[in-house]
Parts: sequence; C-alpha cells; structure tokens
Amino acid sequence: MSGTIGIGLAGFGTVGAGVYRHLVRNGDVIASRSGLRFEVRGVAVRDLWKRREYPLPRCRIVSNPLELLEDEGTRIVVELMGGKDAAFELITEALRRGKVVVTGNKALLAERGVEVFSLAERYGVPIYYEAAVAGGIPIIQVMKEGFIGNRIETIHGILNGTSNYILTRMTEERLAYGDALREAQNHGYAEADSSLDVNGWDAAHKAIILASLAFGFWVPWGEVFVRGIEGLEGEDVKYAEELGFKIKLLATIRGMGGDGVEVRICPTLIPRSHVLASVSGVYNAVAVRGDVVGEALFYGRGAGGDATASSVLADLVAAARALENPPKCAGFTAHGLYGRCLPVEDAVSKFYLRLAVEDRPGVLAAVAGVLGGAGIGISSVIQPEGHGGDNLALILMIHNARTGDMQRAVERIRELECVSGSPVLLHVEDFS
Amino acid sequence: MSGTIGIGLAGFGTVGAGVYRHLVRNGDVIASRSGLRFEVRGVAVRDLWKRREYPLPRCRIVSNPLELLEDEGTRIVVELMGGKDAAFELITEALRRGKVVVTGNKALLAERGVEVFSLAERYGVPIYYEAAVAGGIPIIQVMKEGFIGNRIETIHGILNGTSNYILTRMTEERLAYGDALREAQNHGYAEADSSLDVNGWDAAHKAIILASLAFGFWVPWGEVFVRGIEGLEGEDVKYAEELGFKIKLLATIRGMGGDGVEVRICPTLIPRSHVLASVSGVYNAVAVRGDVVGEALFYGRGAGGDATASSVLADLVAAARALENPPKCAGFTAHGLYGRCLPVEDAVSKFYLRLAVEDRPGVLAAVAGVLGGAGIGISSVIQPEGHGGDNLALILMIHNARTGDMQRAVERIRELECVSGSPVLLHVEDFS
Repeated sequence: MSGTIGIGLAGFGTVGAGVYRHLVRNGDVIASRSGLRFEVRGVAVRDLWKRREYPLPRCRIVSNPLELLEDEGTRIVVELMGGKDAAFELITEALRRGKVVVTGNKALLAERGVEVFSLAERYGVPIYYEAAVAGGIPIIQVMKEGFIGNRIETIHGILNGTSNYILTRMTEERLAYGDALREAQNHGYAEADSSLDVNGWDAAHKAIILASLAFGFWVPWGEVFVRGIEGLEGEDVKYAEELGFKIKLLATIRGMGGDGVEVRICPTLIPRSHVLASVSGVYNAVAVRGDVVGEALFYGRGAGGDATASSVLADLVAAARALENPPKCAGFTAHGLYGRCLPVEDAVSKFYLRLAVEDRPGVLAAVAGVLGGAGIGISSVIQPEGHGGDNLALILMIHNARTGDMQRAVERIRELECVSGSPVLLHVEDFS
Repeated sequence: MSGTIGIGLAGFGTVGAGVYRHLVRNGDVIASRSGLRFEVRGVAVRDLWKRREYPLPRCRIVSNPLELLEDEGTRIVVELMGGKDAAFELITEALRRGKVVVTGNKALLAERGVEVFSLAERYGVPIYYEAAVAGGIPIIQVMKEGFIGNRIETIHGILNGTSNYILTRMTEERLAYGDALREAQNHGYAEADSSLDVNGWDAAHKAIILASLAFGFWVPWGEVFVRGIEGLEGEDVKYAEELGFKIKLLATIRGMGGDGVEVRICPTLIPRSHVLASVSGVYNAVAVRGDVVGEALFYGRGAGGDATASSVLADLVAAARALENPPKCAGFTAHGLYGRCLPVEDAVSKFYLRLAVEDRPGVLAAVAGVLGGAGIGISSVIQPEGHGGDNLALILMIHNARTGDMQRAVERIRELECVSGSPVLLHVEDFS
C-alpha cells in the first residue's frame, strides 16, 4: 500500500498522546520498514479545554468520537479512550463502516469480546488489540501467530504493574499496603482511582484475553476467580519470604483437557527461585508453556504511554496491511477444543494458610483434625516466633487440594474455639 | 485458503523430524486456529538407510533435495538440512519456481542474506526464518512486526545454548572448560563437532540476523567481532563471580547513530543482578531496548528439535497465508538508516584484565603507567589471595575505553618484565 493512511484517534491521554508523539518522531523508520505513512486526521477528547502535557495536534478535534467516523479519509480508528459503553459504540460503528479498529480496551474486550468479534467477523473488518495486554510486550501476536502450532498448557502472568509495584515495595521495604499504594500514586503508577488495579480486575481482563486466545473460546468473565491485593497484610509477605516464596498478583491459566480451563487471578506465593519472582516494580511478564515450544517467557514494561504506544504502532501497521489484504481472521478465532471454565471450587492447588491461634497445647491437633477429616494433606507447619499477646501465628502449607474442599475446611477451622480472627488463605503456585 | 497445502521437507534430523511429528500431532489445533491443513508430500534425506529415532514418513523420500521441487503439489519448501551450498541451491531454486521457503539456516542467511533476499524480492516469493534464531522464541516476528515502531537502541542476546550450558556448569560446579564441554556432549547438547558453538560463530550468525533486522542493512559477517568460549579459564569465571559478575557468551548489538552499529559476540562479564545473568543451561534470551517500548526481554529454549519446530510451524502458517496474499516484504526490508558496522577498534567498552605478575613492589605502578599513558582509566584493582609460586594474579577493571586503545595497551603490558604469560582481556557490559 502506498500513499498516506488516515487515522482517527479517540482519546489523548497518556497512551493516545504517546502514540501521536512517536508516530511523528518515528514516522520515518516506520515508513522505511513498512512503506506506510500515517496521518492523524482527527482526535476525539472528552475535554477540549483541559491543560495537557502534550498539546493537541493540529487536526480536527472533536468531543464526540463518533464524529471521527464521518471523515472519509479516516481508514483506521484507534480507540484509547477507555470506558465501555461509548467505546463499544465507537468500535462497532467503525466496523460497520469498514474502518479497521485498533484498541487497547481490555475491559471492553474481556467483558464483551464475543459481541465485538462477532460483529468484526460479520462486517469482515479486523480488530487489533496488542495494546490491551501487557503494554509493550507483543504477547497477543505471539499467542495468535508465534505459538499457533502449540497446545497451550499453562500461562502465568504478572499483568498489573501497579499491584506489582506495591508488592515489590511491601517485600523490599516492608511497607504496609496503604503506604505502598500511596507511594505508587505519588509516582503516578497508580491512578487516583486504582480500584481496578488493586482489586485484580485489570489483570483479570488481560488474563481473560490471553486465556481466550490460548484455548479458543471467549472465557466468560463471570466464571473467573479474581482476588486483588487490597488488604494483603505485610505479615504474609514476610512469612512467605521466610518460607522461600514471594507474593505476586499472579494470573494462572491452565488447560485441564476435557475438564475445561482454569483461570484465576489472585495474590499467589511463588518460589523465590522462579524467574517470575524476580519481575519487580511496574514490569509485566508472561510465561507460557506449550507442548511443542516448552517454557517461554516475555518481559517488559506493562504500562505507561510509551510502552503501550509501541504496541499501538505495530497494530497500526498490521491494520494498514489489512486494509489492502483483509485477513481471514477478524481478531479472534474460536477453535472449540475446550469450551468451558473449570469452576474455581474444582480447581486443585497448593495453599498457604495463616491462622491466629491461642498459645496452648492441642491447637495444632484440632486444626490438623479438620484438614485430615476433609482429606487435605499438610506439607509443613511453621510457628513463627515473636508476636506476644495471647495469639500466635500458625502457618500451614497445604498439599494439592480441591479449592472447594479447602474453603470449606477453612470455614470449619475459623469456628474452632482456639482460632481467632479471620484465617488468611492464599494460593501457592510451584509451576510443577 | 482452504484445502491442504503440500510441503517438501529437506532434512529429517532432530528439527525436521520434530516438525513432522508435531504437524501430525497438532494438525487439528493448527487447522482450527488457522483453517489450514498441511501435508508433507516429500522428504529429502542424505542417507536413506540411516537408523532413525523417528522413522521416515510414508511419502516420497529422495536423496537429492532439488527433486522435492519437481512435485507440483509442493507449495512450501522447508529447508532444515543445514550446510551452505546445497541449501543455497535448494532455496534459490525453490524461490525461482514460486515455492515459499521456510528455513532455519542461520549460517546461510548470515553469510549470504543479501543474495538470498534479493532473489526472494526479484521473484516476489517470501522466505520465513523464525527457526534460525533462538529456537522457539518468536524474536524474528517481534523484530519485523512487534517493534516496527521503535528505533532499536541495543540488543543483548544469549544465543548459543551449548556455550551457555558449558558456562553454567563452569560457574555452578567449578568445572574446567574441557570437562563441561564433554558433559554437554554426553547430554547431547553439543554436537560431536561443536566448533561453531564454542568458537562463537553460531551465536554470531544469529546476532547478524537480529542486527540486520533491527538496523535495516545486511550486516557483513566479516566485520563482526567474534570470540567464543573455547579456552576460557575457570579462574576467570571464579574471579568474575567474586567481583559480582557472571561470564556469558553475549551478543551485544548497539546502534551508534551515524557512527554505525556495533556487533560483537564474546565472553562478557555481566552484573549478577541483571536478568540475563540468571539465564542458565541451554536456554536462550534476547533483551531488546527500543526508544518507544523501553526494555523488553524474551526467554525460552534455544535449541532442540521441539522448540525450533514450534517456530517452523508458525512459519508454515505464515507461508501458507503468503501463498494467498503475497506480502510486500519478501523477508527482509533494507531501510537505510544506518549502513555500516562500527570497526571493533572504535567500539568503546568496559573491560576486565587479568595479568600474571611478579610478587614485588612497583608492579602495579608499571601496569598503571602504561594504561595511564594511553589515557585509559582504571576503575578498580583486585589482587586475589592464594596462588603461591612466583606469580600473582592481578585483576584490573577498566573504565570505558576504545577497544583499539585497550588492545594496544595490553600488548605493551604483556611486554613488561614483571608480567608473565598472556594477559586475559574480557569485555564487561553493565547495560548502562
């Protein structure tokens, strides 16, 4: 394709402004590699008068993103405005008008992927969404193309930079959760409203997209097990370290053959020696195990305007090529090898269980009795020193157990007289 | 594209047999993801009667690979036979006849890439070569597409699994070089003729391909600085560790703007804390720094039939799609932003210098005098204890210096009366 390709840019926040800036700055290198030149013909912003670090470009500026579609010369729409309803309207209307879509909207795709991709297929217009998962790491392309010959066995991902930053500070500096969160906000790593980061849903949206690509059906978001790091106690970070683990907000995706796919996002203990344990700060990483390729790992900046802009630029080139040669796949191919999520209760995992117990004989026997009665094996028991007061910490590392059985056993343990407060139950992933 | 696509497979060694096996085993998953089915219509092997771990498939078996091209139904030729002359003939003849080429032949591409890609362009038939670099890591696609919007600043790669295995064993078990090499051979990690592994050229071939993709001109193999790990002494592995470094066979590729591109492959000290230092055994890793994406790292199995087969399978799908929609790029696009290699003498680096010196006063003054006279700064001096005998080890860590100046200074130091034996000079990369 020659000539210049018109783009409409919806959203001019960190990522949108980054895309514009790097498109101007690296337009020559993109052109020399791809033969393609891009022109931003319109930008949609919510607030025309907002003070901005990077000024709006000299082009058509609109406040209603749908107006971007009225320009005939706009062939590609880049949706970076976030949110769900207006973005859904823009994307579906763009597809209907034959404009190729590039988006970084993980929440929209995770929750309404089935609708979005079936519209894309109906109109024969593709959607590119590399920017939706893991910032600058080209993991979407790897899943769609690089590993196309593999049955994916597991994916483990550190997919939320804010949570990982907070956990890193809690681990390295022994900060309390609240202090680490405030630090992240002061550094600009966490939004003022960081709820989707710390409640696990930002990572969950990304995990749903990865799991869907790997297993060929759009994973229903309501069936995914999601816990965030909010309220995680520094105590558990410390005990985990003493046991040789680090706590990460880990997405675990595991194909169980005919039994479905397990997708869970939660604070998880991982062995300190595993490479994912050394992913610190705002970095993201995705480890994939395929039946042909074995173990592979991808690591990079997970957020920030620049890293994510890199993925948008790559998608722009792919989108421009698709204008000339429409691809067979509009963005997602169902392949029907697995078709369901494993209910979380049926998923088998190792666990870390911390209890506050009375300092008297017979306590361990009572706790072990409940677990034994449920057929749950204990792999080790640790009674950390110190503490003082009436209560002691008691930590149990649990062998593989059905999650549902484990949860019920913990409920019964909580009711024991010798146990006070709320037990802390965390998943342990040893990558075996 | 529907129907079945005929393939001719040249070479049925570890990788070739792996491709065949996984194509049979995962044909269903590839078909459900891509809509494509493949049929191996012919296999070329050098020795028809050789005993094989995996038996030859039931199809046309030939000993002259050019005969694969005579079959009209063969649309894609997969060259996994290695070597240079016969492979060049097969590939160029395949292109001439319009058959898309998939190859893992790093030596051929590194040394004759200019010819091969200009023929591909002339005939308008593409070549795919993901299998040529870093086994199962889809780094070629990342360089060609994922990071297309980036000016690449540096690439650091651990690209030879055999060397990395040997260095890992020398580091962890304090094995001597020869013992670690024999162990690698016994495990099947090193060929009986492992010269291309340990002399650095296998890694150099891969680095040339990566550098060429990053900087848009085919890097002339004669201008690359290549040293292997052969003859590396356990002593230096040990001293490096004491100084906080690990020795890796590292490919360093660095864009110097108008000054050209530095490409060097040599045993290099890297800080123990850097993520590349923890890449051990037969694994490969590639760290890329781009001006938009920042730091990114890709890690996986670098060799072995399976991991490499994963890349070939991905290339088969890309090749099949190219049969329907011939891509603009036949495999390599020159982009003329840089056009030359920086001569090694002009490259600036930090260094580790080990000398065997007499145990008497004035030695350091003499050595430091030579370095100072050449304008070379010493960042630290270490005199390890022990040894005995007349000679002591003296280790100098050198600030950034022009390599040519450093080499001349070492020549002069070697001539000092107080210095005996051959000085050991190694590069230090601190990723700053």
